[in-house]
Amino acid sequence: MLQHAVDKLFHALADPTRRAMIERLGVGPKSVSELSKPFAVSLSAIGQHLRVLEASGLVVTRKEGRVRTVELAPAALRTAEDWFASHRKQWERRFDRLGVLLEADDVDDARNENRRRRTR
Amino acid sequence: MLQHAVDKLFHALADPTRRAMIERLGVGPKSVSELSKPFAVSLSAIGQHLRVLEASGLVVTRKEGRVRTVELAPAALRTAEDWFASHRKQWERRFDRLGVLLEADDVDDARNENRRRRTR
Repeated sequence: MLQHAVDKLFHALADPTRRAMIERLGVGPKSVSELSKPFAVSLSAIGQHLRVLEASGLVVTRKEGRVRTVELAPAALRTAEDWFASHRKQWERRFDRLGVLLEADDVDDARNENRRRRTR
Repeated sequence: MLQHAVDKLFHALADPTRRAMIERLGVGPKSVSELSKPFAVSLSAIGQHLRVLEASGLVVTRKEGRVRTVELAPAALRTAEDWFASHRKQWERRFDRLGVLLEADDVDDARNENRRRRTR
């Protein structure tokens, strides 16, 4: 995925109202007016948030008659998760290596301890 | 975790230079000058990015003599991942339910098909 697309994804997620909108859409598609109910912001602010969410690929909207329906597009969320998953592996490898080194130290300590006991 | 802290996390991740800095730190702590080497931006821009990363809790820095060392703080990354993990469960439940409904439809279709055959 292009850097720019990942920028837009994380930018979309960096706002509490937009995250709450995504959480609300987790249970199913909603009309814009249903979606905006719990938020103490104007419909025009909701419209701006929706545009950011749509540009990020996190939601899709479709218009039927006068009603615009908003739906989650889980593929984009998976892309953002993948970014973490791929880097977590690197971090874990690093921390695993640290773990191995620390264990090797413990084994050395135990060996030295035994040696000391035997030569006592 | 506070909403504001999650905002800062995702805001920090919404920039390609900051994400690349985090990726570079995945292999181990680095001095600021080492860290900034591959980036075609000024040291002052790197300093600004570092301040955003520090404020988000994604990195910690320590100064020894004249050298500032930057290190990843994996806990914050885990917090951001947890946000996805907790919501993915909800989305998956929803898509699982959809899957069950679609399978039930398939079974109904097969039954109707058999019935049609028997009554032919």
